[in-house]
Amino acid sequence: MSDFSFVGKPTPMIDGGAKVTGKLKYTADLKIPGLLNARFVLSTYPHAKINGIDKEEALAVPGVQAVVTAKDLPDMPPVSRTKLMLARDRVLFVGHPVAVVLADTETAAADGAELVMVDYEPLPAATNIDEAMAEDAPLVWPNGRVSGAGDEAAHGADAGDSGDDDKEDEEKPSNIAGTSKTVKGDVEKAFADADVIIERTFETPMVHQSSIETQRVIAQPNPITDGVTIWGSMQSPFGTRLEVAETLGIPESDVQVHAMPVGGAFGAKFGLYEPLVALLAVHVGQPVRLTLTRSEELLTTNPSPPLRFTAKVGFKNDGILAAMQANVICDSGVYPTGLGGFSAFQFAAFYPCENLLLESTNVLTFKQSVAAYRAPTAPTAFMAIETIMDEAAEKLGMDPIDLRIMNAAKEGDTIPDGSEFPVIGMIETLEAAKEHPLWKNREESKKQGRGVGVAIGGWMGGLEPGAAVCKLNRDGVLQVQLGAADLSGTPTTFTMLAAETFGVDPDKIRFVYSDTNSGPYAGGVGGSKTTYTLGNAVIRAAEDARQQTFAIAAEEFEVSAEDLEIVDGKVQVKGYPDRSLDLGAIAGKAMTFGGKYDPVHGSGRQSVTDRAPSFAAQIAEVEVDEETGEVNLVNLAVIQEVGRALNPMAVEGQMHGGATQGVGWALYEEMRYDDDGQLLSGSWMDYAVPDAVQAAPIHTHIVEIPSISGPFGARGVGEPPIIPTMGAIANAVADAAGIRMTQAPMTAPRVLEALQSKN
Amino acid sequence: MSDFSFVGKPTPMIDGGAKVTGKLKYTADLKIPGLLNARFVLSTYPHAKINGIDKEEALAVPGVQAVVTAKDLPDMPPVSRTKLMLARDRVLFVGHPVAVVLADTETAAADGAELVMVDYEPLPAATNIDEAMAEDAPLVWPNGRVSGAGDEAAHGADAGDSGDDDKEDEEKPSNIAGTSKTVKGDVEKAFADADVIIERTFETPMVHQSSIETQRVIAQPNPITDGVTIWGSMQSPFGTRLEVAETLGIPESDVQVHAMPVGGAFGAKFGLYEPLVALLAVHVGQPVRLTLTRSEELLTTNPSPPLRFTAKVGFKNDGILAAMQANVICDSGVYPTGLGGFSAFQFAAFYPCENLLLESTNVLTFKQSVAAYRAPTAPTAFMAIETIMDEAAEKLGMDPIDLRIMNAAKEGDTIPDGSEFPVIGMIETLEAAKEHPLWKNREESKKQGRGVGVAIGGWMGGLEPGAAVCKLNRDGVLQVQLGAADLSGTPTTFTMLAAETFGVDPDKIRFVYSDTNSGPYAGGVGGSKTTYTLGNAVIRAAEDARQQTFAIAAEEFEVSAEDLEIVDGKVQVKGYPDRSLDLGAIAGKAMTFGGKYDPVHGSGRQSVTDRAPSFAAQIAEVEVDEETGEVNLVNLAVIQEVGRALNPMAVEGQMHGGATQGVGWALYEEMRYDDDGQLLSGSWMDYAVPDAVQAAPIHTHIVEIPSISGPFGARGVGEPPIIPTMGAIANAVADAAGIRMTQAPMTAPRVLEALQSKN
Repeated sequence: MSDFSFVGKPTPMIDGGAKVTGKLKYTADLKIPGLLNARFVLSTYPHAKINGIDKEEALAVPGVQAVVTAKDLPDMPPVSRTKLMLARDRVLFVGHPVAVVLADTETAAADGAELVMVDYEPLPAATNIDEAMAEDAPLVWPNGRVSGAGDEAAHGADAGDSGDDDKEDEEKPSNIAGTSKTVKGDVEKAFADADVIIERTFETPMVHQSSIETQRVIAQPNPITDGVTIWGSMQSPFGTRLEVAETLGIPESDVQVHAMPVGGAFGAKFGLYEPLVALLAVHVGQPVRLTLTRSEELLTTNPSPPLRFTAKVGFKNDGILAAMQANVICDSGVYPTGLGGFSAFQFAAFYPCENLLLESTNVLTFKQSVAAYRAPTAPTAFMAIETIMDEAAEKLGMDPIDLRIMNAAKEGDTIPDGSEFPVIGMIETLEAAKEHPLWKNREESKKQGRGVGVAIGGWMGGLEPGAAVCKLNRDGVLQVQLGAADLSGTPTTFTMLAAETFGVDPDKIRFVYSDTNSGPYAGGVGGSKTTYTLGNAVIRAAEDARQQTFAIAAEEFEVSAEDLEIVDGKVQVKGYPDRSLDLGAIAGKAMTFGGKYDPVHGSGRQSVTDRAPSFAAQIAEVEVDEETGEVNLVNLAVIQEVGRALNPMAVEGQMHGGATQGVGWALYEEMRYDDDGQLLSGSWMDYAVPDAVQAAPIHTHIVEIPSISGPFGARGVGEPPIIPTMGAIANAVADAAGIRMTQAPMTAPRVLEALQSKN
Repeated sequence: MSDFSFVGKPTPMIDGGAKVTGKLKYTADLKIPGLLNARFVLSTYPHAKINGIDKEEALAVPGVQAVVTAKDLPDMPPVSRTKLMLARDRVLFVGHPVAVVLADTETAAADGAELVMVDYEPLPAATNIDEAMAEDAPLVWPNGRVSGAGDEAAHGADAGDSGDDDKEDEEKPSNIAGTSKTVKGDVEKAFADADVIIERTFETPMVHQSSIETQRVIAQPNPITDGVTIWGSMQSPFGTRLEVAETLGIPESDVQVHAMPVGGAFGAKFGLYEPLVALLAVHVGQPVRLTLTRSEELLTTNPSPPLRFTAKVGFKNDGILAAMQANVICDSGVYPTGLGGFSAFQFAAFYPCENLLLESTNVLTFKQSVAAYRAPTAPTAFMAIETIMDEAAEKLGMDPIDLRIMNAAKEGDTIPDGSEFPVIGMIETLEAAKEHPLWKNREESKKQGRGVGVAIGGWMGGLEPGAAVCKLNRDGVLQVQLGAADLSGTPTTFTMLAAETFGVDPDKIRFVYSDTNSGPYAGGVGGSKTTYTLGNAVIRAAEDARQQTFAIAAEEFEVSAEDLEIVDGKVQVKGYPDRSLDLGAIAGKAMTFGGKYDPVHGSGRQSVTDRAPSFAAQIAEVEVDEETGEVNLVNLAVIQEVGRALNPMAVEGQMHGGATQGVGWALYEEMRYDDDGQLLSGSWMDYAVPDAVQAAPIHTHIVEIPSISGPFGARGVGEPPIIPTMGAIANAVADAAGIRMTQAPMTAPRVLEALQSKN
């Protein structure tokens, strides 16, 4: 660690001050002349024919400039939610946008939206998987399936997805959007030979990413080209550029996307309404802004899917895994996803087993479509496997952590997709959990009437090529340029990487996040891949800039570049501190009229292909109120393997944040629809995001097993800490109260019901 | 020529449509919330003590937010005009800004400015060089000289400047801002041995660059850092960044400069009020915009200096130059420049002579300071030498073009700065002029009572390092990124260079001009150096992108990169058109989740050090009205050597524009001050810029002698065509009317006076 000047030192966020003082400007702070405010008219039916839309009263509201419906926009095949735009003829879910009111002020737009009269003819709807899979169920897409791009691709799922692709039933239209199946070995025989078999069905609800900042985007027609300029809260500016270009039917180079500072995203901001808002702006020839209210955010975005996860695992008496089987039914809402198969894959990914049967079915329902949420579907998959591990340990009379270690993946083991694990730290993470005081003192907890549970979660990690640029300025500052979205504290970590590599203090680094015209390519920020992949581009660009700087100094001092070093902001001849030049002066020798040196303009490109799976184990300590069923989370330990903690403060922030969201999954959050497809938890008064007290004291412990290709050995850290929380808390509840919870969130009524069934 | 696909083909400006339809947005079109409009209170005296400034009435105007004077701003040493800011205690010229009114609207600011009451105590002023050099003249800077950065540096003057630096008179404060002297050989003896000696004194007035768009700039304080963001009409964004940073006392990396589209610059927009407006914005904590009116543009900017140019040249009877002598007095206004010495240098630069004496004196006067204007001071220097060449040819009985060819510089000749000429085309330009119909038919002109005159002008050309970036997108478009200002049609030429190099059609190239945060370094656009130097960076970046693209395709096709070619937007294996991939598809293989190739992100850096002097000869045909003295320009031929005409249409545009401005110098333009230092030509009603009819039919002829280091052999083309016009017209007037005009503009009264003196 002490080899580094900056890497590994806890470093506060460079933009933290601006964020907490409100100085940082977000999309909503942008003032653009001539801007029209957009407000949706949302469907109040889960399924209905639109017999007519009366715009007249809305248009009479002072300030309302236009009311736009699907008929006003190009008729595109509704191949995905981002292409769905506005409902055309039929509404397909409660919250489906039917019309957009464009007005000079937010108020006028809202008033106008109230006055758009939609003549609905209600149709039967199937709003959950059972109804949707029933014979003669009303069909979301009666004319055949639409093909939807699975959002999991953006989160690292594809390379690790289960072998078989989703199969389409070509024969008869149904709500089955796709199925997947992975078979390995002989599962039937293996179960027959197993000594202990545990089979359970788990259910987790639709959960919302719940960013503080709702979805928002501004689109402005380019006055010269047919293109548009987009500003928005987003994770993937280059992805948004492509989506908008496809929608408008123009080259992506004519779309300029500014990724604004992001007030939370968590997988929900890989693109949703940007193409629609771009179409609206082009339609009216004026800039248009869409800002969702919290209620709209809950009604008409893309939360994570409800899953029904049936798992069966067989063990030999010595604890060795004999067979694993999963059948996942994923409630996809109105558009297909591949998230069911992804969940099944994760269930089996990190406990290598010779005999596997993984099946999934993605079902269309009359609900809003679904997408990624931090470690998409992994919390459910790991609730399944980790609950079963716990129960098996109990039945086998083994220590639950030892059982996991015995079966854990290690370097060289086979992943279900056929590839091999590189160096990973699953076992080291479990061993660290075993040493954690919360685990070691669990008998003490028991005496106090509490229960302690453990679980682990693993994440394959995403990969994507990207580039970075480093320019040296005349003030000795190295400007580092990226085209990525500025999310989750990466500027601070990248500043440290650039400082470490170039050889200056972090205050001599300035980060520039450029728009898609000016910035080097970067993938979406998500899937725990940004620091892991783009960090390498930053390091290479800084190295390039360092060599270019040395090349100038070498000529000035008439020495070889190898004889130079950077000390205290100066390039000096090694061993001759009096032969030195300020970095700014070196930059200035190129940045001047008649200069004879090329400007220092370093580039770094990367396409890392080594994966770096990472792990988080969690230990939960709970009290269960036997009278009310209420679960009180007393302590939560997060033990995470991060390769190299480049900025331990940022890593711990991710561990806290992920675990807190995990607590939400476990105990609080549920988007509940009634049988008529109406959302019951349509505001933050009803939809319960845990507060600071509810999240319990979180104790972090970092483990470091350097990765092959990460910057200074780092691995992605974003997703793992949300994965094991549900399982750890379920196991703690089992420890405390002797009940196995299989449905999340583990609310008081559900726990009480389980307690009553037990007695 | 036919080796090229695009280079050399006349190509209309890619942004021409947007410019002529008003779609392109300039600085004045920017709408920034909270913007305050700035309006100057300008001095009405050339020299006065400020006893007090009463802001009260101005502040009472509704909408006026602040009235700012020098006392409200940091007290900086007034080392240059850009640092002068507002008058402190004394005003030094008519038009000197004394206060700034900041208001919500332009109107309120103007009303406020009318009501600021300044209590002046008039002081004696010296407003021309004779008064200023007189014994006991009132001193502009009584406490000693200020040092001023000569603007000629930005225009290619420094490397070619005369040997001796300006010498300061340390003894006694005076208005002499500096002198220079270059001596070579034995001038006295050479004149004594000469057969023909011509000595004349030429005078050219203060002339304004007269852009259609006046000076304008917006500064906005950065909400997070101590920095500012600047938008403006400017030639040098990176130069402006440094100037503003120095003024605010912050690192240049904290200043972000957006160079907006420019409605004319011609040397006047290398920085003037940007630092002041930045200070004002920081002072009030709001964005501030300054937009000069035409009258202010004439009163308080930085036109080209009045020059008194005394020249003496001796010839042997065979026409060989024996000695050259020049003494230039430059009226610098309130700040020093080195423009006098630069003018003297140019006089002798292109006619190598063994015996030289070049002297200059830069004199401070109570007038606005001066700066560069297209080929700064060269029109005067060439009026001197080219008039003398013409007169000498007459006396020697030689053809005036032959006399020039005999003495013209060629490859290997010595430049007065001691360096050697590379391959140049001065002789070829003169030979082309000799063959021009306007010259060959001059006897015919004579018969019609007209006169024909010839002159040549040469320009050393500027140099500056710079970089460019080329990104390949998924639509097969190559985005080319520069950090330069977008001026004089360079995007069109650079598009052709990128298309030619990368191997695609120009419509698959998109140009991106980025701000100083996001853009690669580039010098100011001026000095005929942009295409010559940055063109190389574009070519290198496109080459780099091509190689990166081939590297991906080579791996895909499992062939060597040398076996690939780009045809019709596809990379294909040579000879196997069926083995091909669209460029967009290749880009997409890197720009995707899990991609295994580095994104195509080419960089090009350059620091060309070879100069590429270039030449324009002009032939003027005139009629002189002997009754009124009016000179009627009938035809003007521009014969220009450009190395390689990358875009002949753009080159011809420069030839037309330069020659038209030359006509303004010769016949119309003069900023006339009365003895009290009041500007008499303070509007475009009084200051005469030639209109389309006055500019006469201009006939262009391009000569191409490829340069060593220019892109595809190109040379700079911007400055040469303004240089010889005054000389050519003066010689045509001599041919028509037998009078030698030595004072510009050659207005009817001056010509009439000369005609009367002759008779």
